[in-house]
Amino acid sequence: MGLVVQKYGGSSVADAEGIKRVAKRIVDAKKSGHQVVVVVSAMGDTTDELIDLAEQVSPIPAGREFDMLLTAGERISMALLAMAIKNLGHEALSFTGSQAGVITDSVHNKARIIDVTPGRIRDALDANAIAIVAGFQGVSQESKDITTLGRGGSDTTAVALAAALDAEVCEIYTDVDGVFTADPRVVKKARKIDEIPYEDMLELAASGSKVLHLRCVEYARRYNIPIHVRSSFSGHVGTWVRNKAEGEEQAMEQAIISGVAHDTSEAKITVVGVPDKPGEAATIFRTIADAEINIDMVVQNVSAAATGLTDISFTLPKTDGHKAMEALTKAKGQIGFDSLRYDDQIGKVSLVGAGMRTNPGVTAAFFEALSNSGVNIELISTSEIRISVVTRADDVKAAVQAVHSAFGLDSETDEAVVYGGTGR
Amino acid sequence: MGLVVQKYGGSSVADAEGIKRVAKRIVDAKKSGHQVVVVVSAMGDTTDELIDLAEQVSPIPAGREFDMLLTAGERISMALLAMAIKNLGHEALSFTGSQAGVITDSVHNKARIIDVTPGRIRDALDANAIAIVAGFQGVSQESKDITTLGRGGSDTTAVALAAALDAEVCEIYTDVDGVFTADPRVVKKARKIDEIPYEDMLELAASGSKVLHLRCVEYARRYNIPIHVRSSFSGHVGTWVRNKAEGEEQAMEQAIISGVAHDTSEAKITVVGVPDKPGEAATIFRTIADAEINIDMVVQNVSAAATGLTDISFTLPKTDGHKAMEALTKAKGQIGFDSLRYDDQIGKVSLVGAGMRTNPGVTAAFFEALSNSGVNIELISTSEIRISVVTRADDVKAAVQAVHSAFGLDSETDEAVVYGGTGR
Repeated sequence: MGLVVQKYGGSSVADAEGIKRVAKRIVDAKKSGHQVVVVVSAMGDTTDELIDLAEQVSPIPAGREFDMLLTAGERISMALLAMAIKNLGHEALSFTGSQAGVITDSVHNKARIIDVTPGRIRDALDANAIAIVAGFQGVSQESKDITTLGRGGSDTTAVALAAALDAEVCEIYTDVDGVFTADPRVVKKARKIDEIPYEDMLELAASGSKVLHLRCVEYARRYNIPIHVRSSFSGHVGTWVRNKAEGEEQAMEQAIISGVAHDTSEAKITVVGVPDKPGEAATIFRTIADAEINIDMVVQNVSAAATGLTDISFTLPKTDGHKAMEALTKAKGQIGFDSLRYDDQIGKVSLVGAGMRTNPGVTAAFFEALSNSGVNIELISTSEIRISVVTRADDVKAAVQAVHSAFGLDSETDEAVVYGGTGR
Repeated sequence: MGLVVQKYGGSSVADAEGIKRVAKRIVDAKKSGHQVVVVVSAMGDTTDELIDLAEQVSPIPAGREFDMLLTAGERISMALLAMAIKNLGHEALSFTGSQAGVITDSVHNKARIIDVTPGRIRDALDANAIAIVAGFQGVSQESKDITTLGRGGSDTTAVALAAALDAEVCEIYTDVDGVFTADPRVVKKARKIDEIPYEDMLELAASGSKVLHLRCVEYARRYNIPIHVRSSFSGHVGTWVRNKAEGEEQAMEQAIISGVAHDTSEAKITVVGVPDKPGEAATIFRTIADAEINIDMVVQNVSAAATGLTDISFTLPKTDGHKAMEALTKAKGQIGFDSLRYDDQIGKVSLVGAGMRTNPGVTAAFFEALSNSGVNIELISTSEIRISVVTRADDVKAAVQAVHSAFGLDSETDEAVVYGGTGR
């Protein structure tokens, strides 16, 4: 048997009991003959508590120090987890991101992994120990300062280690039984997906599904690491994220639609009265990019012939809304628009499935379902395997349910179980 | 102006308010023209909370992992302190023990510093930044694992850095105004000592005075680093611990007695009926040493001629009492004693002063004071500059007060102010 990387989120190790429960699971994997590397997040609310402290001492905490602060969280959980495993009679050694060889760039609070050199992890495994690694953190190649990877960081750590160690599988333990055809909190009849290809999982993650973070799935696809998303609270088989090997039957098993995702974390900005000439959109989005804001959907209205003016709308994280409005206002003279409109009462609903490429009826059925449930559409954006619409935030739940039913995704029973919060 | 190392204990940085208050003090030192290096302990009860968590997951936490866990405490306080300083408009960079170049041996939970290579600290100072260093922790030279220095570790970190950086002074900030002639909680009329030589401070620390830890004073004496013990809650000048330079007036200013210390953290073991022949005591104390227990006072009674048997009593930390009794019981056959007596209701009272060397009346006056206050003496131990007695625990306060008055140490007023708990 080979090497397994397991990742446990904050809700799985929220207290001493949780840590002991997780320790047993890890020891079981070891007993079954695997080499085991464990990536762990900070306990429960630790990170929020640390952020709260930081805000008390400084309104805008500095990047380097903020990372130093936050990494204390995993330090605590990993040490406790190693102790709990040793208490069960198995050797365990904990490693910080830096000790585990997680090398990053120097962008504090959202560093990117540029190399993984897990020499000490290999040594620990060779010595028959279980290696416990702090998720979410690394060390910058340039300054040797401690960095954190930002949202979804621990999942990314796990997949990166799995790739560097040539692991058989990366198991992501969470508080739900796997990836569902829709958020089980919204759709009671959502079904657990048994297997999903990387590209569908990417689209779901990008469209608001919170089970796996986009960066982690991207990393797994690049290095072809199978991910098994499963619950740390039950023994059930979860969702496998992987591509079929060459020669395996694809068409027969490939569902047309993988699932429905939704996202209410975005806002919409409309730049009103932009001169309809080349370079205008570029200036707007350069302004946004310079403020280090990622935008999501973009729509430009057809220009009104009489005025030669057009409107450009785009969506972005609500948390960046203020910064974006400020940047655009500053650049008003340069861009030359009439006004700005800000709307944070929107939601996004997305239908994802690699099978829709070859099924022309999907788009039509999607819009019919929304129309039948009385949901008004404000923006539309599509990829080859996804359709997304922006609606009023109030309409999101109805839209998700309608689409889920229309594509035959409803299960016979209410099977989804959610156990707690989600880790980072 | 030169370089100052400041050390703040856990009670000084117990919460966000405390951190902001300390940040102001640090910035004041910087503004006055000093280069400033700050050593900080974990916030308030953080360490105790982490120990509590460790005990919940494992009855006997492993050394390596326990150190990894505890060092999270200073990581939090140092990052927050750096943020708070930056918020006041001054550059600050925090460093772990490892980053600060605190190199130790590999004895987890009580590592000893074997080298300090503060290259990154010097770089930070050269860049006009304030360097914040995690106290209490280092990295082992051999295994590159994180270590902690044990009790008094943060004070030792501060003095070691002061020595390595050739600092002008090492300021130890605490919750009292300095070192007192006796514990102000016991003796209301205890006086703050303005200046005390290293050797007196060593004896006081070894005899139960908690303001400075023995290791820190030893280190300071070896490298001749002046220590200024003072309160982080007031602006008062505290106690200077240093030796007079050659040629300075010693005799005139040197008080005969520096102070009275007491200690109720010890227990007494009496080994009854030991054959009075060479090697017996050695066997007993080898047994104790092999159990890694430090003993303090030792007294052997005069042998009773009739039996050829004697009793050997010694004191040791109460926390090691059980372990010592177990080790001796196991070695009973080898040592050949009759029985063991364990007594943890004892206290130790010590009178300390380099001046007593040349003042023959001191010992007599000490015993007279105890006798006049009706305190019974069980063991006596002396050094050139200290007399210690073991009494009943109940008698300790009366003994300290009596001796304090007898040697004219009482102040006119009740001047001592105690602000909170003590850090590590």
